[in-house]
Amino acid sequence: MLLLKPDDAVLFIDSRYTFQAREEVSGIRVQTVAGGLLRAAAEATLRIRRSGRISLAHEPAHLTVAQKQAIEAVTKGRLRWVAVANLVENLRAVKDPEELACMRQAADVISGVFAEVLPIIRPGITELDLAAEIEYRMKRRGASGPSFETIVASGLRSAWAHARPTTKLLSKNELVVLDQGAILRDYCSDMTRTVFLGRCPGKVRRMYRAVLDAQQAAKNAVRPGADAAAPDAAARSVLKKSGLARYFTHSTGHGLGLEVHEPPRLGKGEKTILQEAMVVTVEPGVYIEGFGGIRIEDDVVVTSTGAHDLTSASRELLEL
Amino acid sequence: MLLLKPDDAVLFIDSRYTFQAREEVSGIRVQTVAGGLLRAAAEATLRIRRSGRISLAHEPAHLTVAQKQAIEAVTKGRLRWVAVANLVENLRAVKDPEELACMRQAADVISGVFAEVLPIIRPGITELDLAAEIEYRMKRRGASGPSFETIVASGLRSAWAHARPTTKLLSKNELVVLDQGAILRDYCSDMTRTVFLGRCPGKVRRMYRAVLDAQQAAKNAVRPGADAAAPDAAARSVLKKSGLARYFTHSTGHGLGLEVHEPPRLGKGEKTILQEAMVVTVEPGVYIEGFGGIRIEDDVVVTSTGAHDLTSASRELLEL
Repeated sequence: MLLLKPDDAVLFIDSRYTFQAREEVSGIRVQTVAGGLLRAAAEATLRIRRSGRISLAHEPAHLTVAQKQAIEAVTKGRLRWVAVANLVENLRAVKDPEELACMRQAADVISGVFAEVLPIIRPGITELDLAAEIEYRMKRRGASGPSFETIVASGLRSAWAHARPTTKLLSKNELVVLDQGAILRDYCSDMTRTVFLGRCPGKVRRMYRAVLDAQQAAKNAVRPGADAAAPDAAARSVLKKSGLARYFTHSTGHGLGLEVHEPPRLGKGEKTILQEAMVVTVEPGVYIEGFGGIRIEDDVVVTSTGAHDLTSASRELLEL
Repeated sequence: MLLLKPDDAVLFIDSRYTFQAREEVSGIRVQTVAGGLLRAAAEATLRIRRSGRISLAHEPAHLTVAQKQAIEAVTKGRLRWVAVANLVENLRAVKDPEELACMRQAADVISGVFAEVLPIIRPGITELDLAAEIEYRMKRRGASGPSFETIVASGLRSAWAHARPTTKLLSKNELVVLDQGAILRDYCSDMTRTVFLGRCPGKVRRMYRAVLDAQQAAKNAVRPGADAAAPDAAARSVLKKSGLARYFTHSTGHGLGLEVHEPPRLGKGEKTILQEAMVVTVEPGVYIEGFGGIRIEDDVVVTSTGAHDLTSASRELLEL
């Protein structure tokens, strides 16, 4: 737990992290404590000033009611609680060059893994085994792990936008949605591709084309100064022409960084203004119960000339 | 989000989960909502009674300040907030037979994976690659994923109790701490073994023996009616005889179930009384900076006749 004071910072750790902190932390004080990190931080807050009220900035979405009570039990009315909702999130939404380098690498890992598993996306493998092969290859490429539980959803299950992989076997003439991401040097990637096992019927081909066009339209609407609702509106407008808009049941994208879901959200009613160096996913999808689903998702960085793809695996309809 | 009412329950979902809920949820109402789950749940709370105050039980450790404010914005003073700290956690600490069956399976998975990777725990593989091999085999055995990022800490890094695997190569004459767990059917396992690469020096052999004896003493102190501090005291007492107690820098164990860390904690000052069908880890360790660390961890279930091991990989000192 890190306490940022006006002229100083203290990192509170428990004894499990003593050696690691000695090796990895420099420039600030590290204090190993026994009776709980929160208690130690609250006590240190009191020492900032002998008397009078001390302002404590906090993020209401990240502080639990119990933590707030525990701090108050120590500080007994001396704190002025200043809510700073999304302060850190908003700082994080715009990436600096070093962060962008990490995110490019995380995106490269997942694009590379997808290319590598293509030959085994075949009838006869289970969804779970395919997910295992994907996550294994992420780690072999240096990822600390998947940024979320890899989704492999085949056949009718492809219509579940957030399906978890099962022991179901991939079969001929099925759609397969693969949604996967890797954490590399703490930064996340998140990419979805949808493939067809066998020769693709016309209806699926038209659906795929519509989703890909919707994705491209959304990407075209990603630029500095646009609001975060614009890409979503663009994607929906394309899907409407094919009568598929009502099957697009989630928002078009979300920010990405240290966490796999961060502000800004690309969706209806969002007012955030997109800025250069924000990283977002662009992932329209259509889900028809009893038939199947298609989603195509890339990570893009907002640049002065528009959306620039970080994920690079082929977006063409693959018949495997 | 599930709202439990006196005679009824409602599950609030967003449209991504409509098909899945139809297939997986029965016996209660499912409501697909647009404007946020919390808002919908708060509004439904108000409909429980036309007038007067409505009691809302909540867990302070799981409700954020922002969530509480969002609920209050809808319910405008009509709620009586009743804090029920650890209500669900305490219910969860004691496992029912079906839960125990899941946990046995999760433990079997990790014991089996450890046996399977033994031949590749050799000089020349990186910590990260070994972790990848371990997690891959979990998933191949049906796990949805690791219950935490697998720890492979070799050489001097074995003295870091919570090390993350790196690109460091395993080398001859090193200790290697492997701490790994799998999630199977939503339940976690958590097992640590420490091996030596090469012929083990006497000092390491004696340390290993002391940790293993400490673990056995702790297991012997796990029984219904004992308090959760007893196993910890037993382990420390054994390590004291070898002068190693001061290198044992964490508590002896923790509850295990749907999460990898749950109540009860087995540590100094804990008052919880152990009950039949609780599942806890027993994991003493010694960590000597500049030398290395040893930890041995099993998952045990509390039975009428004492601790019963769920994890089964060999605890003898392995020289690989």
